Amino acid sequence: MHLPHIAPTADAALEQALLDAINNKTKPLGSLGRLETLAAQLGLIQRSTTVRIANPAILVFAGDHGVVAEGVSAYPQDVTWQMVENFLANGAAINVFARQNGCALHVVDAGVNHDFGERPGLLDRKVAPGTRNFAVEPAMSRPQLETALEHGMALVRDLPGTVVGFGEMGIGNTTAAAAIMHKLTGLPLSQCVGAGTGLSLEGVQRKQQVIEAAVARHTGVNDAFDVLATFGGFEIAMMAGAMLKAAELRKVLLIDGFIVTSALLVAARVQPAILDYCVFAHCSNENGHRLMLESLGAQPLLQLDLRLGEGTGSALALPLLHAAANFLGEMATFASAQVSTSSQ
Amino acid sequence: MHLPHIAPTADAALEQALLDAINNKTKPLGSLGRLETLAAQLGLIQRSTTVRIANPAILVFAGDHGVVAEGVSAYPQDVTWQMVENFLANGAAINVFARQNGCALHVVDAGVNHDFGERPGLLDRKVAPGTRNFAVEPAMSRPQLETALEHGMALVRDLPGTVVGFGEMGIGNTTAAAAIMHKLTGLPLSQCVGAGTGLSLEGVQRKQQVIEAAVARHTGVNDAFDVLATFGGFEIAMMAGAMLKAAELRKVLLIDGFIVTSALLVAARVQPAILDYCVFAHCSNENGHRLMLESLGAQPLLQLDLRLGEGTGSALALPLLHAAANFLGEMATFASAQVSTSSQ
Repeated sequence: MHLPHIAPTADAALEQALLDAINNKTKPLGSLGRLETLAAQLGLIQRSTTVRIANPAILVFAGDHGVVAEGVSAYPQDVTWQMVENFLANGAAINVFARQNGCALHVVDAGVNHDFGERPGLLDRKVAPGTRNFAVEPAMSRPQLETALEHGMALVRDLPGTVVGFGEMGIGNTTAAAAIMHKLTGLPLSQCVGAGTGLSLEGVQRKQQVIEAAVARHTGVNDAFDVLATFGGFEIAMMAGAMLKAAELRKVLLIDGFIVTSALLVAARVQPAILDYCVFAHCSNENGHRLMLESLGAQPLLQLDLRLGEGTGSALALPLLHAAANFLGEMATFASAQVSTSSQ
Repeated sequence: MHLPHIAPTADAALEQALLDAINNKTKPLGSLGRLETLAAQLGLIQRSTTVRIANPAILVFAGDHGVVAEGVSAYPQDVTWQMVENFLANGAAINVFARQNGCALHVVDAGVNHDFGERPGLLDRKVAPGTRNFAVEPAMSRPQLETALEHGMALVRDLPGTVVGFGEMGIGNTTAAAAIMHKLTGLPLSQCVGAGTGLSLEGVQRKQQVIEAAVARHTGVNDAFDVLATFGGFEIAMMAGAMLKAAELRKVLLIDGFIVTSALLVAARVQPAILDYCVFAHCSNENGHRLMLESLGAQPLLQLDLRLGEGTGSALALPLLHAAANFLGEMATFASAQVSTSSQ
């Protein structure tokens, strides 16, 4: 398998040119805060002192998880395919927010345990009808992992836009993400496991025990891709592939919640420079997401107590990317507007 | 002067109907976090289980401050009228963000120290060419205050939309806002005074000394409108009037940064129920704004380290109001989408 090579975005001359452009705008120095940092980051990604947010798209990857047999989710597995149907019928939250913010939405069957048949609007990249139960065996084989990564890379290769957001759907996938987080960050499991779609306290404890036992069973699994194959989902693996390719193509990556960030944990372990291309959309209410973001040195734009997934945080953050691009492109300068500058 | 009467929005039956509508959407309970709270608030304001964000408008009030004679700002007073010109030429940050988010922008001369002549696009409501220097005398007379409040009320009466955002421009107005905050919240001045447009540490200390001396000079000033007349600006007073009228008309009030919130402090002292109508857009980086928001029990939607004013935070938060209205109006329900509900 050929993996993308990702170059860091650092460019001291361009960074200075971007700073000058930002500081010449008619506003007190630094007064647009995070939007200024964002504009500079986007400029570095696009190698330009102007920023183009064109044809943004969100990819929603769906997959099922064998580990649900252990009773780790508040919802039955059927909800995965039912929600895919809901995406296709435009009825889910991500449909509403993507439509509102002018963002294309692509729904990918990465490995749902359901036969959708041929469906317009559904990208069939099913690796298998769900992973195996990682409580008893690795979630996927190495060839399955590579298939998932390659599909992810190919999907992004075909996207026309400058921004790719990531979203997911998969009953059981906070369990997979928590296991990946624990293995790759070294944080104690109790800090990685949360309520997911709404587990009771007992449910959370059971989820933690299931992962604990699985981690003890799968000894010697430490390499990022091994961790992904052992505990991950097809949607998580396909996302990781898509992220790596998106950064190689110098697209802006919009990173959403707990599961999406777990895919990035894997991708960043393989290609650390990928982080230069990531805009962190939202800090989820899922226990552990804040710590996951901290481990990446990431500062999310929004904190709205969402814990829905689907890429909803990414869709909601998109207007802030436009705002960063627009102030850089459209605001007057002190000189052009003949506004006096600071006396200090 | 006839002041608006503002009714609380509380309505237990409607609140339950809104909660039911929100909980029936295809998502885990509560998983849209702050957007759910926001949707319920907007429904209560509009007395409906659907929410209409129609013709949103931002009013930017500009005014000058006599207290700048004390050297309390990093920028010369001329920047107030120069920035008004910039607003009229569409070159400021608020122009960019309002345009991006489909929001009308109305620029009001509440009391700028400059003769604009007749200018298309500028609403001339000039009470006087700037306030007097509150370091030596009250900033405005009681009749001037009433004129400002009445202009504010009349401006909102003419707006067609369901959402009004507030913004301001006025060199010296963080000094006025800090004095109002200190008088109305009782917090120590050191917690109310900040760098404004970019004062040095010495500048901030000087600003605090100026306010301290003025507060000592104007004894017995405690009533909210007296505080506003003594320390306020015409743009702050006109905003307070506009806010009171907007809530009476059951519009949604989008509250922005430090100066806008100081106007709300006055309005809320006069009519506490106004807070039911307020959506807090952004927590500013200006020292004191966080405490000001806390004193109102307010939770802002965004924290982007902005400290620009102009209503920029309000314009940037507008997509979140649309998101709240849209998920409530457009998402499928578990029943309509035939998605299984939680087993817990």
